[in-house]
Amino acid sequence: MNASPEPLPHLIDVDLGDRSYRITIGSGHLDDVGTICREALVDRHAFVITDSNVGPIYLDRVTTSLGGTSKRVDVMTMEAGESTKSLANCQRIWQQMLHLAADRSSIVVALGGGVIGDLGGFVAAAFARGIDFVQIPTSLLAQVDSSVGGKVGINLPGAKNMVGAFWQPRSVLIDTDVLSTLDQRNYVAGLAEVIKYGLIMDLPFFEYLEKSVSELLSLDSETLARVIARCCQCKTDVVEADEREQSGRRAILNYGHTYGHAIEAVFGYGTFLHGEAISIGMTCAGRLAVQLGLVDSEFLKRQTELFRAVGLPVDCPSEKHDELIDAMARDKKVSKGQLNLILPTKIGHVESIPAPNRAEILTSLKPTD
Amino acid sequence: MNASPEPLPHLIDVDLGDRSYRITIGSGHLDDVGTICREALVDRHAFVITDSNVGPIYLDRVTTSLGGTSKRVDVMTMEAGESTKSLANCQRIWQQMLHLAADRSSIVVALGGGVIGDLGGFVAAAFARGIDFVQIPTSLLAQVDSSVGGKVGINLPGAKNMVGAFWQPRSVLIDTDVLSTLDQRNYVAGLAEVIKYGLIMDLPFFEYLEKSVSELLSLDSETLARVIARCCQCKTDVVEADEREQSGRRAILNYGHTYGHAIEAVFGYGTFLHGEAISIGMTCAGRLAVQLGLVDSEFLKRQTELFRAVGLPVDCPSEKHDELIDAMARDKKVSKGQLNLILPTKIGHVESIPAPNRAEILTSLKPTD
Repeated sequence: MNASPEPLPHLIDVDLGDRSYRITIGSGHLDDVGTICREALVDRHAFVITDSNVGPIYLDRVTTSLGGTSKRVDVMTMEAGESTKSLANCQRIWQQMLHLAADRSSIVVALGGGVIGDLGGFVAAAFARGIDFVQIPTSLLAQVDSSVGGKVGINLPGAKNMVGAFWQPRSVLIDTDVLSTLDQRNYVAGLAEVIKYGLIMDLPFFEYLEKSVSELLSLDSETLARVIARCCQCKTDVVEADEREQSGRRAILNYGHTYGHAIEAVFGYGTFLHGEAISIGMTCAGRLAVQLGLVDSEFLKRQTELFRAVGLPVDCPSEKHDELIDAMARDKKVSKGQLNLILPTKIGHVESIPAPNRAEILTSLKPTD
Repeated sequence: MNASPEPLPHLIDVDLGDRSYRITIGSGHLDDVGTICREALVDRHAFVITDSNVGPIYLDRVTTSLGGTSKRVDVMTMEAGESTKSLANCQRIWQQMLHLAADRSSIVVALGGGVIGDLGGFVAAAFARGIDFVQIPTSLLAQVDSSVGGKVGINLPGAKNMVGAFWQPRSVLIDTDVLSTLDQRNYVAGLAEVIKYGLIMDLPFFEYLEKSVSELLSLDSETLARVIARCCQCKTDVVEADEREQSGRRAILNYGHTYGHAIEAVFGYGTFLHGEAISIGMTCAGRLAVQLGLVDSEFLKRQTELFRAVGLPVDCPSEKHDELIDAMARDKKVSKGQLNLILPTKIGHVESIPAPNRAEILTSLKPTD
């Protein structure tokens, strides 16, 4: 990654034909939603969905800015937390939208982390068979991952993201300043997805991250903007090549995720944050790759050191390993009975490999001495 | 329309790029679902959704045929009726699908009328962010209208089709034989949409229908197959030009529908069947077109005579006319405060015209002496 400063704001154009959109990344943007996303919002009825954590801090700035552009602004504030991503809440929101005279020209503005983005996006995808939405992600995880690529959805009891759509936003606005009010644990968890992009597809970016740990941990806004922009560009490149997960290219984003999803499910959602679970998951996957001779132990050492440097966990709990492997076998990426894993061959490259036998996977769960 | 016999089955290819599919129309096809839709169904887990009217008559034949092609066949039978198109039922079906180990390679088979097609289509559109579905429409209305074009969805309390998607089926199979068990009133109501295609875009087809009233009323299977195929082709031409209702072309399908939806809403869903309401609606719209000088009274006479000949109602009830006009003004096709109506200029052609003043519309609701 080139070390020379780049102009702010960073602009990423996601090219998906008639579903193309721009991601704008910088500092202080919450006050400029109305102007930055003017094309999407002008003279429209904007329906802001936020949550009980983010709303009290940032909602006023967003609605004030929208007020100068949209013809009407309504707000719905949901309880913060994963359980908000339910069908019952979709119905509540849709009925409120109807009550407030929303129609097919209205636009949803999702202001919050991944939960609000996923929920608000699905609300938009299905209301009147699909209306526009703008995404303002406020967690690092949402900024670098769920705000790019159009995956929206809700949970069924016992099945995360089981109902949803591929529905691209009209515009994404990322304000790095909001990360200052994100709690440390959630911020660090988001760094797991950041580091993932380096590992799966971008060696220079990985090296830049190795050198930028202190800037990352002190929330240096220029570093943050550059890092988030690079992540969004990486994900954009993948999504442009495989919007609907059909060619297999998009699967590289799942590095560490089959392990990670199993860890989240077996130890209970919330025990580990998603980013923590995939940090452990990538560590296990890296270890498996060493076992299989796909990479040398130096790979695993560098990967582990960077996770540790930013404060991410890397060790899988020493219990429930059989349950973990069973959960991995049920992963929704299982295709025709064959579980494939995304495994590294070097820093900056991963491949989809048929999972080896149970004993190999069991070994990969255990910390290397 | 050419009077020479055409080969059976009739095949209509709907060309929508990577969402293209084939409609197969003929007699006795229920026993051949597995072979006709083999490409979509082979080695897949098929999940059949049907209702309490259609299931007892036709389900066995369909599951037997599927059994020879799909690797597993499960069935869910819903209560017949419009109230089945609810979010609560979607959740029930999705949870049942999960329980039965459905995954993203499973395929929904919707066996029933418009309600089951709309519900089953939406279930498929949102499960695992979208899985395939096959449509086997069993009412005339569903065969000529809702099975083409990919509009799927459910109702919210007080708002029909308010939640949904554009989601194209992988294949549509139409067996004209099933119309023999459709009750006469529903069958005749379906003829309103049939006649609509002649009126909005196909003069030769309208003339063919004028000459074929007795064959239609006796359910002559060759006539039915030709008529249904022509309707599907008409709708296909419109949908190919404007899949997502963006260019305005698809709006021509709404001839009589702004009146019709208002009649359904004001007099209560079920008082008039949809086809009956739009027969009355097209009569009112035709009358308005005469009032505005867009067509001569001969147009209205021919249109009305054909509706009457097949047994469709043409007279709007003499009460609640103010409520009807208010309901028309709330029509979801209102764009930026302007209500447009689809009105005829001759048999085989309609145009979108800004609605005239209230007095003109009021007059159009009253039978011409």
